Amino acid sequence: MKIVIVGGVAAGASAAARARRLDEHAEILLLQSGPDVSFASCGMPYLIGNEITDRASMAVQTPQSLNARLNIIVRVNTKVNEINTTDQTVVARNETTGDIYTEPYDELVLAVGAAPFKPPIPGIDRPGLFTLRNLQEMDAIVQWLNVKTETKKPADMHCVVAGAGFIGLEMVEQLHHRGMNVTLVEMMPQILAPMDQEMAAMLHKDLEDHDVNVIVGDAIKEFAAYEKDADSSVLTLQSGRVLPPAQLTILGLGVRPDTGVVKAAGIELSPRGHILVDEHLHTSAANVWAAGDAVEIINPILPDEKWAVPLAGPANRQGRMIADNIYGKKRSFRGTYAVSVVRSFDLYAACVGLNEKFLKAKNVPYNVVHVHPNSHAGYYPGAEKIHLKLVFDKESGKIYGAQAVGKDGVEKRIDVIGTAMQGKMTVSDLAELELCYAPPVGSAKDPVNFAGMAAQNIMDGLISNVEWYEMDDLVKNPDVFVLDVRGGAEIEKTGKLAEKAVNIPVDDLRARLSEVPKDKRIVVSCASGQRSYYACRILKQNGYANVDNLDGAYLTFHAAHPEPAA
Amino acid sequence: MKIVIVGGVAAGASAAARARRLDEHAEILLLQSGPDVSFASCGMPYLIGNEITDRASMAVQTPQSLNARLNIIVRVNTKVNEINTTDQTVVARNETTGDIYTEPYDELVLAVGAAPFKPPIPGIDRPGLFTLRNLQEMDAIVQWLNVKTETKKPADMHCVVAGAGFIGLEMVEQLHHRGMNVTLVEMMPQILAPMDQEMAAMLHKDLEDHDVNVIVGDAIKEFAAYEKDADSSVLTLQSGRVLPPAQLTILGLGVRPDTGVVKAAGIELSPRGHILVDEHLHTSAANVWAAGDAVEIINPILPDEKWAVPLAGPANRQGRMIADNIYGKKRSFRGTYAVSVVRSFDLYAACVGLNEKFLKAKNVPYNVVHVHPNSHAGYYPGAEKIHLKLVFDKESGKIYGAQAVGKDGVEKRIDVIGTAMQGKMTVSDLAELELCYAPPVGSAKDPVNFAGMAAQNIMDGLISNVEWYEMDDLVKNPDVFVLDVRGGAEIEKTGKLAEKAVNIPVDDLRARLSEVPKDKRIVVSCASGQRSYYACRILKQNGYANVDNLDGAYLTFHAAHPEPAA
Repeated sequence: MKIVIVGGVAAGASAAARARRLDEHAEILLLQSGPDVSFASCGMPYLIGNEITDRASMAVQTPQSLNARLNIIVRVNTKVNEINTTDQTVVARNETTGDIYTEPYDELVLAVGAAPFKPPIPGIDRPGLFTLRNLQEMDAIVQWLNVKTETKKPADMHCVVAGAGFIGLEMVEQLHHRGMNVTLVEMMPQILAPMDQEMAAMLHKDLEDHDVNVIVGDAIKEFAAYEKDADSSVLTLQSGRVLPPAQLTILGLGVRPDTGVVKAAGIELSPRGHILVDEHLHTSAANVWAAGDAVEIINPILPDEKWAVPLAGPANRQGRMIADNIYGKKRSFRGTYAVSVVRSFDLYAACVGLNEKFLKAKNVPYNVVHVHPNSHAGYYPGAEKIHLKLVFDKESGKIYGAQAVGKDGVEKRIDVIGTAMQGKMTVSDLAELELCYAPPVGSAKDPVNFAGMAAQNIMDGLISNVEWYEMDDLVKNPDVFVLDVRGGAEIEKTGKLAEKAVNIPVDDLRARLSEVPKDKRIVVSCASGQRSYYACRILKQNGYANVDNLDGAYLTFHAAHPEPAA
Repeated sequence: MKIVIVGGVAAGASAAARARRLDEHAEILLLQSGPDVSFASCGMPYLIGNEITDRASMAVQTPQSLNARLNIIVRVNTKVNEINTTDQTVVARNETTGDIYTEPYDELVLAVGAAPFKPPIPGIDRPGLFTLRNLQEMDAIVQWLNVKTETKKPADMHCVVAGAGFIGLEMVEQLHHRGMNVTLVEMMPQILAPMDQEMAAMLHKDLEDHDVNVIVGDAIKEFAAYEKDADSSVLTLQSGRVLPPAQLTILGLGVRPDTGVVKAAGIELSPRGHILVDEHLHTSAANVWAAGDAVEIINPILPDEKWAVPLAGPANRQGRMIADNIYGKKRSFRGTYAVSVVRSFDLYAACVGLNEKFLKAKNVPYNVVHVHPNSHAGYYPGAEKIHLKLVFDKESGKIYGAQAVGKDGVEKRIDVIGTAMQGKMTVSDLAELELCYAPPVGSAKDPVNFAGMAAQNIMDGLISNVEWYEMDDLVKNPDVFVLDVRGGAEIEKTGKLAEKAVNIPVDDLRARLSEVPKDKRIVVSCASGQRSYYACRILKQNGYANVDNLDGAYLTFHAAHPEPAA
């Protein structure tokens, strides 16, 4: 048995290691285009920012260590230029020597990955512009910064990060960590596309609180040489806005599957260029498998949907599964749920599954709830709010996705909800879920329980919600009575929901029902949505037919809509 | 509708609050034996230790707040002395005034809780001995310590904690935090009964590293007055050992259901005195429900098993479910998985489900794996080892339980595995589970994945394990060859597994196979079990028929067995 693996970072190295454990006597050949295998891609921003100081730790495995431990033949700086699926061969080129040779395979694993997207913008090949795909690009950025900071103080330097995805946000934090001024430019109307607008807004504000210049809804039109320094670039945006000269620009504009050779081989690709695989991760060509960032994979949340999710975790497990399947285990990949987390300064943002934007665009009916519980018991010091959004189907209780933002315990809750989704559990299961509780790390009712209970209340018809983006229209409607059940002093301190909102604290509501008109639609809010839920229940059971809760209440509304509704 | 609720801490207060949301017009009467309702039981050790400084925060709700917000009538200091299930009445006594009165109910909710166990030991009613069930007992301990520390420096004081369960361990930490000398006495041969011995051993050592005097396998025989100070007690243990005079003793000897009145009413109890309920949490008496620490509940992990699990989370959700069921929702409680966590100094210990001891005692076939992965990516600073044990059935892949010990991310992994168990997922699902990964909070292969993969390898027959407690017998057996595949310098530094163990580093094994005898059983170990797994695979595929991996390798072995196997 001879297994040839193209690409040796996450999926490729996993496939190689697993194959060796299953077959001590197979010939396993790993061809890697760059000089490194199995490196810590996700750590690169942190090394640039000096949070990671041990450069050697970034190479998780080396060609030598893979050979010593696993008897794998690793050829680095080797590019595969041709795949011949009839002959079962690949044509490889040693980029150091220029030698070109043909290598036969019994089984071929394509772990070719994805390359950073570089749009055809004038000046995009100027000095000082970098993408961040591998350790060489990382080293080049470090080297560039080291040279620049010899003559310039970090505080006098300006860096631009283009693209507010995971890597973009991490680079913003790390460049800020090195003391530089940072501008973040994002073409979409919000940062962090996997989240919905009101959730991303919390990170947006936090970035601005850290003096990051955040520009959304605008894209780079041109990079031009700065007249006083040829190594600096002047960026002009589509809007005409011109940014101060930048000594460094990081292009984090997403990735594209690196599948030119795969396409030329006649292996089936998706319209966007991802490799198509069946549930066993087999491609359209005999004995050819594919895994990682270059494949389109089952989206298990909606029937018949597929998507491409470039994450290290799924890549590793796909690689391992391919080795199992080469050896006849017939394992099925159940799809990728897109569980992810990013840290941005003091905040973590994590999400899983589908967001509201996506479902709206697909015309899939859905409901959402927003809750703001504490990361651990409120009476124990250091509790932080977790802003948690759950997207679900109120008929079946099916969970479509979840998003969370906060300082502590954020990714834990998404891991729990993500696990529940992978186990096909419902929002009612979340309400009942038993989770660890000790005062420093949890609550008797965990944030996940709160979100599940809030969703269950909608399923049971105990409450109905309106969303933050409906409030401007609602306050304009003369038939709507907006009721804020917070305390008066609290409103003074944190701000009004709407000029038009009438304030009756929830504890006074039973005694002051006469102040609430029976002939109008009532929309109730408080700070987090808990007291407004109580108020809705009081009103509904006292003859008010048309009562809605502002989902997530003032905390969600205000994050996305800093001014009172009007 | 008139609902009477007996007990107003977790389950009772939850039932009351939910009932109000479902029925604005019900009469809801909550009878509580002590002066407080809905207080932060789990926070009490931390207030005693001054980690929580705000005494007011310990009362999560007050009778006044429950009345103002939820229109619930709360009668504190009120003891229910009689339940008449035929008349549907309870007889209550106002402990302040001595008034006795009869209260009819349409629905009765028993949330009577459990009381600390006080065994009939001579001297158990001496001054300076405390249990910790409620805020009054907490205040009494604080008051006692305040008086004692007026005349004695904390460093000159000695406290004994009897019972090494959750509350016992928390009290040890908190008394140490106040600067006192602490002895922990546990009757069982190990601390922290929900965990297995080798996992609890890690906490045991950590306690000793913090200068806590830990005594296991011994119990208190007698408390006697200290001749020089009538407020101090001299404790004599069953072994005859006499402890230094103690200024304070905390009795954390477990709890017993507080169900005398329930029994007298003819409501069915378990042999141990817990209230029996059906899946809807209904007792044997019409219109009587029960929840919380006093009930015996379904153990969903083994068929037909029931157990009593006194934890706040399940109590809260049971209370809520009873309110739903009173209003006809017919929800079923699926049982309690016993998900729990405790912090002990720098370590967290968390667990879910059934442990090895339990399954062994029940004669249920099981397998275990121990893994020791990092809490987050190893290349990012601050990663800490998580010691994780998974107990499962290798035929079906069913997860019986899990235990974890470490400094960071411990309860997250148990929450994830606990969620998977509640979703009836298998160890193969854990191997495939998609979890959050960013360098500061996870790894591309999460510790949960590692544990799942290790279990899957056993299911697939790729490897078979021996356990740490088998090693002494194995090294004595002349037909066993013990192979340690760590590096030589590593063994020098961390210690030998067994004098008899032969060292061949894993990377040299292929070249040195001739040194491994073919006619013996081979037992392989390394540091964490990963390299020994690789070594097992090499051996098995090179004609070695009888090869076993030491599960958890040296890290697990050494935790439970500090001396080399002999």
